[in-house]
Amino acid sequence: MSLYSQLFYSSEVNELFSDENTIAAMLVAESSLAQAQAEIGIISKESANVISNCCSIDFVDIDKLKKEVKLGGNAAIPLVQQLTKVVKNQDFEASKYVHFGATSQDIVDTGSILQIAQYLNWLENKLTVLKIELMKITEKYKRTVMVGRTLLQQARPITFGLKTSAWLEGLCRSIERIDEMKKRLLVVQLSGAVGSQNKNISNEVVNLFAQILGLNPSFSWQSQRDNINELAGKLGILTGSLGKIAKDVSLLMQTELGEVFEGAAEGKGGSSTMPHKRNPVTCAAILANATRVPHLVGSMLSSMLQEQERSAGNWHAEWEVLTEIMLLTAGSLEKTTELIGGLEVDEKRMLANIEITQGLIFAENVSLALASKIGKIQAHELVEKACKAAVSKNRHLKEILIENSTEIESLDELFNPENSIGNSVEIVDAILKKYE
Amino acid sequence: MSLYSQLFYSSEVNELFSDENTIAAMLVAESSLAQAQAEIGIISKESANVISNCCSIDFVDIDKLKKEVKLGGNAAIPLVQQLTKVVKNQDFEASKYVHFGATSQDIVDTGSILQIAQYLNWLENKLTVLKIELMKITEKYKRTVMVGRTLLQQARPITFGLKTSAWLEGLCRSIERIDEMKKRLLVVQLSGAVGSQNKNISNEVVNLFAQILGLNPSFSWQSQRDNINELAGKLGILTGSLGKIAKDVSLLMQTELGEVFEGAAEGKGGSSTMPHKRNPVTCAAILANATRVPHLVGSMLSSMLQEQERSAGNWHAEWEVLTEIMLLTAGSLEKTTELIGGLEVDEKRMLANIEITQGLIFAENVSLALASKIGKIQAHELVEKACKAAVSKNRHLKEILIENSTEIESLDELFNPENSIGNSVEIVDAILKKYE
Amino acid sequence: MSLYSQLFYSSEVNELFSDENTIAAMLVAESSLAQAQAEIGIISKESANVISNCCSIDFVDIDKLKKEVKLGGNAAIPLVQQLTKVVKNQDFEASKYVHFGATSQDIVDTGSILQIAQYLNWLENKLTVLKIELMKITEKYKRTVMVGRTLLQQARPITFGLKTSAWLEGLCRSIERIDEMKKRLLVVQLSGAVGSQNKNISNEVVNLFAQILGLNPSFSWQSQRDNINELAGKLGILTGSLGKIAKDVSLLMQTELGEVFEGAAEGKGGSSTMPHKRNPVTCAAILANATRVPHLVGSMLSSMLQEQERSAGNWHAEWEVLTEIMLLTAGSLEKTTELIGGLEVDEKRMLANIEITQGLIFAENVSLALASKIGKIQAHELVEKACKAAVSKNRHLKEILIENSTEIESLDELFNPENSIGNSVEIVDAILKKYE
Amino acid sequence: MSLYSQLFYSSEVNELFSDENTIAAMLVAESSLAQAQAEIGIISKESANVISNCCSIDFVDIDKLKKEVKLGGNAAIPLVQQLTKVVKNQDFEASKYVHFGATSQDIVDTGSILQIAQYLNWLENKLTVLKIELMKITEKYKRTVMVGRTLLQQARPITFGLKTSAWLEGLCRSIERIDEMKKRLLVVQLSGAVGSQNKNISNEVVNLFAQILGLNPSFSWQSQRDNINELAGKLGILTGSLGKIAKDVSLLMQTELGEVFEGAAEGKGGSSTMPHKRNPVTCAAILANATRVPHLVGSMLSSMLQEQERSAGNWHAEWEVLTEIMLLTAGSLEKTTELIGGLEVDEKRMLANIEITQGLIFAENVSLALASKIGKIQAHELVEKACKAAVSKNRHLKEILIENSTEIESLDELFNPENSIGNSVEIVDAILKKYE
Repeated sequence: MSLYSQLFYSSEVNELFSDENTIAAMLVAESSLAQAQAEIGIISKESANVISNCCSIDFVDIDKLKKEVKLGGNAAIPLVQQLTKVVKNQDFEASKYVHFGATSQDIVDTGSILQIAQYLNWLENKLTVLKIELMKITEKYKRTVMVGRTLLQQARPITFGLKTSAWLEGLCRSIERIDEMKKRLLVVQLSGAVGSQNKNISNEVVNLFAQILGLNPSFSWQSQRDNINELAGKLGILTGSLGKIAKDVSLLMQTELGEVFEGAAEGKGGSSTMPHKRNPVTCAAILANATRVPHLVGSMLSSMLQEQERSAGNWHAEWEVLTEIMLLTAGSLEKTTELIGGLEVDEKRMLANIEITQGLIFAENVSLALASKIGKIQAHELVEKACKAAVSKNRHLKEILIENSTEIESLDELFNPENSIGNSVEIVDAILKKYE
Repeated sequence: MSLYSQLFYSSEVNELFSDENTIAAMLVAESSLAQAQAEIGIISKESANVISNCCSIDFVDIDKLKKEVKLGGNAAIPLVQQLTKVVKNQDFEASKYVHFGATSQDIVDTGSILQIAQYLNWLENKLTVLKIELMKITEKYKRTVMVGRTLLQQARPITFGLKTSAWLEGLCRSIERIDEMKKRLLVVQLSGAVGSQNKNISNEVVNLFAQILGLNPSFSWQSQRDNINELAGKLGILTGSLGKIAKDVSLLMQTELGEVFEGAAEGKGGSSTMPHKRNPVTCAAILANATRVPHLVGSMLSSMLQEQERSAGNWHAEWEVLTEIMLLTAGSLEKTTELIGGLEVDEKRMLANIEITQGLIFAENVSLALASKIGKIQAHELVEKACKAAVSKNRHLKEILIENSTEIESLDELFNPENSIGNSVEIVDAILKKYE
Repeated sequence: MSLYSQLFYSSEVNELFSDENTIAAMLVAESSLAQAQAEIGIISKESANVISNCCSIDFVDIDKLKKEVKLGGNAAIPLVQQLTKVVKNQDFEASKYVHFGATSQDIVDTGSILQIAQYLNWLENKLTVLKIELMKITEKYKRTVMVGRTLLQQARPITFGLKTSAWLEGLCRSIERIDEMKKRLLVVQLSGAVGSQNKNISNEVVNLFAQILGLNPSFSWQSQRDNINELAGKLGILTGSLGKIAKDVSLLMQTELGEVFEGAAEGKGGSSTMPHKRNPVTCAAILANATRVPHLVGSMLSSMLQEQERSAGNWHAEWEVLTEIMLLTAGSLEKTTELIGGLEVDEKRMLANIEITQGLIFAENVSLALASKIGKIQAHELVEKACKAAVSKNRHLKEILIENSTEIESLDELFNPENSIGNSVEIVDAILKKYE
Repeated sequence: MSLYSQLFYSSEVNELFSDENTIAAMLVAESSLAQAQAEIGIISKESANVISNCCSIDFVDIDKLKKEVKLGGNAAIPLVQQLTKVVKNQDFEASKYVHFGATSQDIVDTGSILQIAQYLNWLENKLTVLKIELMKITEKYKRTVMVGRTLLQQARPITFGLKTSAWLEGLCRSIERIDEMKKRLLVVQLSGAVGSQNKNISNEVVNLFAQILGLNPSFSWQSQRDNINELAGKLGILTGSLGKIAKDVSLLMQTELGEVFEGAAEGKGGSSTMPHKRNPVTCAAILANATRVPHLVGSMLSSMLQEQERSAGNWHAEWEVLTEIMLLTAGSLEKTTELIGGLEVDEKRMLANIEITQGLIFAENVSLALASKIGKIQAHELVEKACKAAVSKNRHLKEILIENSTEIESLDELFNPENSIGNSVEIVDAILKKYE
């Protein structure tokens, strides 16, 4: 990994996709194939056991393998060669049955799915943690009044909990989406050279192979790459939803807003030249990932045009890109969880900021109150005029309205932020109940 | 639409997303809002009816609206202005209640979902038609032997039905994916200026509004755009799967292969300078779409970083892109259905092509037969050598093997394509049964 | 064009790429081909003149052409058919020489380059206008002190002119880049069916054809699409640089910053529910375009893998995408020029905002002044501590420093923003001089 | 690097961008800054020398640095901390002047440009090698007749040299483009915290700094990222042009075409199950890169929207993506050079393939010959009819034409491929002369 392995990524997940673990997953596939074939009697139990015993990363010369990948064009070819040699040293007979009837792609793809299964396990656990964190702050701040902003302009008050409840909903829909996909995605690839199966790769072998691996059986998807694109796409959406959170926080952290902050840590967010700054470093990392992943999802989709029974290039184009998507998404998730867990909220500043417009953000309250009397358009125009006066004279809208003796009762209530949060609290309660 | 409106697109779907229909969908939202509010007693039934009667595209000055879009930044603002004026001409009182409590995005987004619902209806019908066409040819050609090709090289025989059964599986998984998404996607947007609802946009109003429109209720997703990205992503996958079909057909149509052809039509696929050519024009269109859509899906994901309660730019970036994805996918689907419906298959040429390698593609049969005797690696090496001899001497592999007195029985059977299709037929049957 | 034709686009440029103008450009190519061939004596001058006279958009049935595009797969095929018919009605002999020796792609591509030439002409004029506008405001505000912001945090003072001088530099480099490309891009395509030229498309014809059209001659680039990708890429960069301007303005326009504003216009930037808002509508459009174009540039690059002498799909994938890039870039340019021309700057607010941090943004001044005495790290630490005290006690940094009797002379000068703008003014002067 | 470090990449270039070399480049920047400041008298020569002596990768704890990157958000912050400590251990006074007046981005960006300069040096050398290889085969095969193919259909004869001359032209335009960009790209970044320079980063320092580094001086481009996007875009075009070559070769290598082949190597291109196959493994890698890079170029463009004086996320989004583009492009270039250097051409098969259509590809010859007698449309129709007859009766077109007593002289010449290559040879000669 690069210099930035800890800035953008999750160390745990980086490890999950290390060279060693990637090769190990392919070896699990080879071993399981032998066991499945032995179970049915295609090869002997003894041979299968020898093969399985040799399916250890310890026997693999990774550097040699990397060099040879260039010759065959994928990692399974040199791996099978190495494995066969190791088996042969132990049992000549057994060596005939290594990778028996299988094709390289069977092993590469199944290995990949095994890693994806582990990844999804990690991801779902972390998603639950973040969900709980989001529920906590949503509950905590459900009545904390702040201004809602649209097109980067102050609009009307909401509560901070309402904002985070929307983050929560986005996240929970991602959890649902990821769950729905597993039945399709977590399947074996085992169908031989051209996807037609063969004597040694019978349907029975496929079923047993799947059972051993804890995956679903499947016919060939060697050049049908929709399922892994579903994974890519759904991770892309998740990264986007996490990026949206980081975007909000980084904006709220602006010096001039100062409402919400990344948790502080020794040495964190400092600038080499401006000792006072509190940079949204974690947000920056999450946002960087959210900028990159959409293009990687597009890259996966572009590689769907796989020629005939196996592609010359587009299959190859998937490998690093799909892994990168998984790694970046994991990084974003880990960092967002850190962000939410450590979030600092300045409720006073939130209230103070509402007053910046000198009442302008309550203009709609007045508009609505007036609309029922004089019609929406007229109300809109009248209030617009009052707003312009308030701005040009740098005075509070309420004063202007009073002077213009605008016929509205209970002006004070119209200008009380707590009266302007709509159903924020009820919505938060309903959302929290839904995801309890 | 451009000069290419009929090459890349579906006329029916282009029409669905015409300016008129887009505006009409927003008017349906406005009308339903008034009706929902009347039902609850927020506004009078009379006002609601006047409003609903005015919610007709006939009253809209589209050119004016387009000009004013530039001022407000979205289509709902000038539409509401025009609508209010029309209502006011009929009933001053009612005009106070147009768009009552709603925000522009409520109308733009709900209108968009209404169009998406219609689109999905169209899409699902067409998907069923294509599914049936694919099932037909899969059944028809399930025993039609051809060569399978990997990395653009002849590999081993399959049947044409096996190939099309993989196309079918890809398509059917898309059908499943699209169906799963509808519960999340087909929801209203109605939550007022900052997503907090308000007196006139109560939860009860939202529920009724949804009920009238045949959609699900929802809290604000004004800056949570995961659902429409799910749509984009799943259409991207579908377009990719359709592109894969076109890629295969265009390759099989190559002059030197000549196994499968787009249906002929008067004037179709001709070249202005080469009267004999039979260009894969339909495939080219499907492939062009499949080249473009991945980037558009990426574009949607990039626009997920929507600031606070409504974005300045990223919301706007969605509009044309999402529509373009829907239009191109529809075009691809319509054209693929046309392609499959008219597909011409040259079974003789398929068989003849198998002989091009002078037996080389049966090398694996020999390998496997030998492997059980002398071990896989040795068998691989021996056969590799024989293959090289066959190539360098331009002779048939069977002859070389006979001369080398390779100890294999039943050579003829090993070189019979029909014996080399693995479980092609069984797989086809199983797949057809699954999707019946 | 869509509902949003005036929001994201330039009407002038939309018109430039209308169906009529696109066809007309192809007809100019056909006419010029005939003239070139007549000049050399391949066809008679009479025939050429008849052909040229018939090369008028008035004779074209555009609806019919659109329908037939679907059959041949590009617009030139039906156009040549229509043109030949028109010519034949006038002069049977001449009709033999329509599109003589050419291939469809010669006409489509040359027509496209002719439109690109017009487009670049428009673009360069508009770029000059924007350049001048940017120079004006850069000069005007070169001493206007404001705070510079990094990672969305206040950092140190700059001048507004320094900021706009960076916008200017980005723009001027784009102007330079676009100019450099013209010698490669503005070339004819004329090389016949497979790019080899032929009797009727001799090198001499190509040269004359180019001369008539005001383009450079070229050998076939029928499947070498680097030049149009250079166009796409450079427009992508321009759109990005314009988007960066809009991003800055939209952030500076935030209610809490309020330093810079889009020019006001009747009805512009209003919200249907919040009459006081001043939405960055123009910025939103420019930003939306900047979100979309990167993906379209990627789409163009993806279509570079054009098979052999003409692609089945990737050529087709370029057409609408390249046009869309040109249209969106034009829209961004026009809108940015409008934005800069109408920009409102609140110099007082700029100065006031500097005080928000109560002196914290001057911490580096103090750091640097101290560093020469006690070393950088120590200075950094000491000032960091003082900053924390200032924050926690909500007091001005200068006061804290005085209390801590930090040994710095001339504290007042260190806290004077005008003394903290570095070489802002000198840099601005140098940049303005460079681009005069 | 991943398992695939040797499949998709160049080892030399991977090494160039190793962690060590990336850090070393930043240290060169720090050292040069001190030297430049000493030259002018801002710091003492002694201090500068101590600093320069400490600017060695040997003193850096890379693991520690990677961990700390997470805190500050970029690699320069922890690097400066480590460097300052090292300097302090040697000379307390000097330690005050490490990174004096600079900002992290100055160092990260300048280090990056130094690496880019090295990269471009490598790239230009390799481009020259490939150019020479392409010129060689273009000369060698300039008269080698083969069929040209459009939309994957046989069209008309060309020569293989004509095809490779188009590859050559694409490459040479990339060489030109890359050269043009260097004046803009190879510039320093040195302008302090907010791009305004300062006392210690004066214009004079910037100029000296640039001179020491062999780069051009520049004002701040801290949030103007057009130049590095120009690099990304131009590498994207190069990768596309290389991908086009690989696309052609992989198609020509198809079993049914068999005209051109990747050079053979021990163990190369073999399949684990089909010993006879000759997979286009090198092409697959080049194509995979060409599938991925367009999206990475798009990713760079998306990150151009950098907020104010330094971005929170978009700057960060560039780092790994730009490097990845450079690495993949280098891999593609190295592999294409290998591909072209080892290309095997089967001239006999090329000629044989021309006969596959039984004369159909010469139809245009007949068309043109007839056109001058009976008009283009009639000729087209007559020949089209004859072609259909030839196809349906599976006979040679020449025979059909003779039977129909079509009035054409010298039919044999019209059906001689060597007479149908247009100006292939002349074009090749002209192109070779241009690039000599």
